[in-house]
Amino acid sequence: MSSDLLCGTHAAPVVTQLRRHAPLVHCITNDVVQNVTANVLLALGASPAMVVDAEEAAEFAAIADALLINLGTLTRPQQQAMRAAIDSACAAGKPWTLDPVAVGALTLRTSFAHELLARKPAAIRANASEIRALAGESTGGRGVDSTESTHLAREAAITLARRSGAIVAVTGEVDFITDGERTVAVHGGTAMLTRVVGTGCALSAVVAACSALAGDRLQNVAAACWLMKRAGEAALAASHGPGSFATALLDSLHVQACGGRHETH
Amino acid sequence: MSSDLLCGTHAAPVVTQLRRHAPLVHCITNDVVQNVTANVLLALGASPAMVVDAEEAAEFAAIADALLINLGTLTRPQQQAMRAAIDSACAAGKPWTLDPVAVGALTLRTSFAHELLARKPAAIRANASEIRALAGESTGGRGVDSTESTHLAREAAITLARRSGAIVAVTGEVDFITDGERTVAVHGGTAMLTRVVGTGCALSAVVAACSALAGDRLQNVAAACWLMKRAGEAALAASHGPGSFATALLDSLHVQACGGRHETH
Amino acid sequence: MSSDLLCGTHAAPVVTQLRRHAPLVHCITNDVVQNVTANVLLALGASPAMVVDAEEAAEFAAIADALLINLGTLTRPQQQAMRAAIDSACAAGKPWTLDPVAVGALTLRTSFAHELLARKPAAIRANASEIRALAGESTGGRGVDSTESTHLAREAAITLARRSGAIVAVTGEVDFITDGERTVAVHGGTAMLTRVVGTGCALSAVVAACSALAGDRLQNVAAACWLMKRAGEAALAASHGPGSFATALLDSLHVQACGGRHETH
Repeated sequence: MSSDLLCGTHAAPVVTQLRRHAPLVHCITNDVVQNVTANVLLALGASPAMVVDAEEAAEFAAIADALLINLGTLTRPQQQAMRAAIDSACAAGKPWTLDPVAVGALTLRTSFAHELLARKPAAIRANASEIRALAGESTGGRGVDSTESTHLAREAAITLARRSGAIVAVTGEVDFITDGERTVAVHGGTAMLTRVVGTGCALSAVVAACSALAGDRLQNVAAACWLMKRAGEAALAASHGPGSFATALLDSLHVQACGGRHETH
Repeated sequence: MSSDLLCGTHAAPVVTQLRRHAPLVHCITNDVVQNVTANVLLALGASPAMVVDAEEAAEFAAIADALLINLGTLTRPQQQAMRAAIDSACAAGKPWTLDPVAVGALTLRTSFAHELLARKPAAIRANASEIRALAGESTGGRGVDSTESTHLAREAAITLARRSGAIVAVTGEVDFITDGERTVAVHGGTAMLTRVVGTGCALSAVVAACSALAGDRLQNVAAACWLMKRAGEAALAASHGPGSFATALLDSLHVQACGGRHETH
Repeated sequence: MSSDLLCGTHAAPVVTQLRRHAPLVHCITNDVVQNVTANVLLALGASPAMVVDAEEAAEFAAIADALLINLGTLTRPQQQAMRAAIDSACAAGKPWTLDPVAVGALTLRTSFAHELLARKPAAIRANASEIRALAGESTGGRGVDSTESTHLAREAAITLARRSGAIVAVTGEVDFITDGERTVAVHGGTAMLTRVVGTGCALSAVVAACSALAGDRLQNVAAACWLMKRAGEAALAASHGPGSFATALLDSLHVQACGGRHETH
C-alpha cells in the first residue's frame, strides 16, 4: 500500500477551522510538558485546560471539545482521573486522543495503555517504538526516545488502526497517518524537534484539537502533523540552538495559524 | 462610582520596594504555570518557593513573606496543603492571595474557593467569569478563559471585596482593583498576554508579593497589575509571536524592576 | 588545602563523552523545573526521562544510566518512588545524584535527605546553605536561595564528601567540587543564573549525567559545573534580561556540546 503525500493545500482549511472554532482541549498530560503543550495550543488559537482531579476531570471532559491522555508521568491517582475523563468524554460524544509515552518499556503504563485501547480513542499519536509496542510487537525502546525509524512501524500503525478504530499517527523523520485503509505521509521537519522536550507531546495535543474538527479525521490529524513539521522548519531557519528554536517554534505556529499576521496592539 | 486611573507615578515606589525587600513568596499553584510563575517573580527581584507537602507547607508559610493559593490543577491532597498553609500564614500574620482558576465551571474548586473565602485572603486576582462566580453570580465560563468583559464584573468585584475584606483585582482588557470603597482602573496591555499560558497566574503571584509590602495595599496590588500591562506592551513591540513575546515579557519585567539596567558581569 | 582551578582542557573530553554516550538520565525532580531540566540535558545531547510511579521508577532506574533525586517539591508518595528508584539503581550499579533543595529549612526533607545519605549517592550538588545543613552545621537559609558564600561551605563539603563517599559540588559565585581529598574550584559564571528558575536543579541533572561517564568522577562532576558557568557567561553576552538569557543558555550549552555547530537541516 502506497502513501499519499500530504501537502499544504489539504492542511490549510484545517488550520482555518482550528482558528475559527478554537477547540477547548482537556489535557491530562505529563509533568514535564504541561507548559509547552498549553503554549502550542494557544499559539494555534486553541484553548488548553488541565483538570486533574478525577471528579472534576469527569465534569470537564463533557464540557471540553476534545480530551488528551498522555501517559508520560503516569501515577495511580492519575489513572483514575484518566478513566473518569475518558468515560465522560465518550458519553458526551467528544473524541479522545492517546499519547502512550514510553509504552513497551515499563509495565504499569503498558498494561494501562492496552486497557485504554478498549475505550475507543479517536486518535493515537506516538513514536515508532511505542506504536510497535501497542500493536503487540516487541521493541528495543529504553524510554521516550524512539530508537527506530517510522518506516519500520508503518505496518504496525495500520494494524493498530484497524484493531482500535483510531486514526494512528506514527511520527518521526517521516510521519505516517493511517485509518487502517488509507495512509498519508508527511515529510520534512527537523531533528531539532527532538532536542526540545515536549514537541511530540504537544503535537498529540494538536492532534486532539484537530480530532474535534468537522471533516475527514484522517486529513485533520495529518494536518496537525504537517503543521508541526512546517513550523519546525521555519523555526530552525530562525534560531541558533534549541533555546531559540523552542521560542521560534511557537512564533512559527502562531504565524501559520494567523496567516502571517502578528498583532501589534 | 468612578474609577481612578492608576499611573506610573503611583507604581514606581512599589516596584522599588519590591526590588529592595525581595519578598519570599510561597506558591502553591497549578502544574502548568510553575515555571513561568517562578520566572516572573525572579525577573522582578522577588523570591519564589514552591513547597507542597501539607506539613512542610505549614512550616514554610510561616517563614515566607506571602502565600499564593492557585486552584488551577486542584487535587484533594493539595487541598490539605492549602488549608494548612493558609492557617499557618494567617497565624503568623502573613498575607495570602487567592487565584480561583476556573471557579464556577467545576464543582470541587467552586465549593473549596467559597470555603477559603472565610479564611480572609488579603487579595484575590481573577478574570471576569471567576470574580462573578465567586460573588455568587452565575456565569458562562467554560474554563480558564473568561468569555466576559471586566466591565461586567466590576460591581461583582466591589461586592466580593466588601464581603471578603480582600483587595479584589479583576483583570482583562481593563483591570479593576478595588477594596470595596475605592476602585482603581488599569488600562492598556495586549491580547498577546492571553496567548501565553500562565501570565494571569504569574500576575497573581506578583499580587501576592506586593501584598506583603508596606503602604496602601490597594495601590500595591494595582501596581502589580500596572507592571504586567506595561511589560506586556513593551514585550509586544519586541516580539514576533507568542514564543518571543514570552521571552521578552520576562526581559521587560526585569528592566522595569531594575530601572533599565541589564547586568553584564 | 588549596583548590585546583578547573580549566577547559580538563572539561573538553567530558563534553565529548557526554555527546557520544548520550546517557539516559532518570530524573525524579521537583514540579517547577521539569521542563528546564529536560531541555538542558537535551541541549547537551543527553536523554532525560521522568518516571514517577514507585513501581515504574524502580523498573526504569535499572534501565537508565543515571538517576537524579531532587527534593524541591517533596511529597510522601514521591518519597516512596525515590527510595524504590535509588535501591534499584544501586542494585544495578548505576550512580545516583542528590540535589537536597532547601534542606535545613524544612523538617520532612531534612530528615529524608539524611536517610538518603546512607544509600550512597555518587554525587551531591547543592548551594552553600544546603551543604552546610547536610554536613550537620546550622544555617540561616530560608528556602531555595543560599544566603551564604560557597567559601563558607568549602570545609563542610569536604566533610560531607568524606562521610558520604560522594563527590560533593557546592555551587555559587565560586563552585567547589571535592571527593574529600582533592578539591577543584570553578570560577566565573554570572548572577543572572540565579534570576532564572531551575539552573541549579538542571546543573544537578548534568552532574548526574556526567557521573555515569567513564574516568575520574571528580573531574567529570567538575566539568558539569564548568559547562554551566561557561554557558552562563556566553548567554549573558547574548541576552537582554532573564527571558532571553534562559533561551540563550540552552543555545550556548548546545553549541558547547556540539563544538560550535548548529544543524540547519
